[in-house]
Amino acid sequence: MYERLSIVTRSQERLEDITTRVNDVLRSHEVNEGICYLFVPHTTAGIMVNENADPHLATDFLEHMRALVPASEHFRHAEGNSHAHIKAALVGHSLVIPVEDGQLTLGRWQGVFLAEFDGPQERTVVISMQSTSPITREEPVTRAPRRR
Amino acid sequence: MYERLSIVTRSQERLEDITTRVNDVLRSHEVNEGICYLFVPHTTAGIMVNENADPHLATDFLEHMRALVPASEHFRHAEGNSHAHIKAALVGHSLVIPVEDGQLTLGRWQGVFLAEFDGPQERTVVISMQSTSPITREEPVTRAPRRR
Amino acid sequence: MYERLSIVTRSQERLEDITTRVNDVLRSHEVNEGICYLFVPHTTAGIMVNENADPHLATDFLEHMRALVPASEHFRHAEGNSHAHIKAALVGHSLVIPVEDGQLTLGRWQGVFLAEFDGPQERTVVISMQSTSPITREEPVTRAPRRR
Repeated sequence: MYERLSIVTRSQERLEDITTRVNDVLRSHEVNEGICYLFVPHTTAGIMVNENADPHLATDFLEHMRALVPASEHFRHAEGNSHAHIKAALVGHSLVIPVEDGQLTLGRWQGVFLAEFDGPQERTVVISMQSTSPITREEPVTRAPRRR
Repeated sequence: MYERLSIVTRSQERLEDITTRVNDVLRSHEVNEGICYLFVPHTTAGIMVNENADPHLATDFLEHMRALVPASEHFRHAEGNSHAHIKAALVGHSLVIPVEDGQLTLGRWQGVFLAEFDGPQERTVVISMQSTSPITREEPVTRAPRRR
Repeated sequence: MYERLSIVTRSQERLEDITTRVNDVLRSHEVNEGICYLFVPHTTAGIMVNENADPHLATDFLEHMRALVPASEHFRHAEGNSHAHIKAALVGHSLVIPVEDGQLTLGRWQGVFLAEFDGPQERTVVISMQSTSPITREEPVTRAPRRR
């Protein structure tokens, strides 16, 4: 099962919280228990987990990444966005999260974020899902025999 | 198949080796061949692979992370642990490792570590497993049809 | 389904593009739709996505990583390659990419790279594949019943 999320990022560097949208996709495919694979098919954006309660944390993260990989650095790549490629590589492009009770098994303070380093622009997240017990929550949950 | 490991980290910043415990979980579920998914549901801890032979490497890693993301930096997040969130995001929260012969396919010098950046405290690692040939090693291994 | 790629890296620090070789493995196993898991069983090499069009980007990345984690730093690990371990940990050891139409669902500018930080040497990438519709592209594509 595949789905592509389209995300319009709102500034040059930004963490866009996509947690609700990913959980909505799981619900629409009735994935109750399984694995959710998130992949970002871009070179200047990544995917990561961060706290979603205090927005200052996103600001702190992006500012510190700018300090670690300044855009002003002398890079060879002529387009002037080498820093965005490096930041995206450090954040990473794939994230795999187990699914239980129809939701990502995120911790209480966790959210899933598209990390934009060269926006604003329209981005895609490829969502793949594997369901290991595609029962809906309305059904009585009996102990199903494990198939694998 | 899911299991949650509970790990009591022993200092503020520390790499806790959980390799043996993860392999024990695989064994208890008789996962002989398949995939092991590790996910850390915390915002100030991550999961990573590192060498497990020389403990100096963990010290070098943690000290260098402190140099890259100093706690003393001026951050906005009021709790004073922004540095721990940034370090955890750089390390990452998910790790996926193939399983063969009932064990993680780790290299000779590799171990799996919970990376604690805001301890000491009790942490959780969510372990999901998919078995593609749930045969026990006692059975004669014939070429079983792949179930996927 | 497992396969091990052998990669001879060509310098001390280098991003080796393995995209074509991974897609060849998917084709040889007739994985048309599914998930591809890549794992590097080494402590001084990692796996990552980066742009594959402009080779300057690999140079920029490696040079900037050298600036962030200099080999000259005073580290405790006696072998003198602590910097390579730290770089590999930051890049990461596992990467999971969906497969569609018999290929990794990479973006237009993306390639998959083994990130060598302590070469040149022979390296391995463990490739695991899960096929969710193991049809070949020659067959007429009918809507197969989902098995999970």
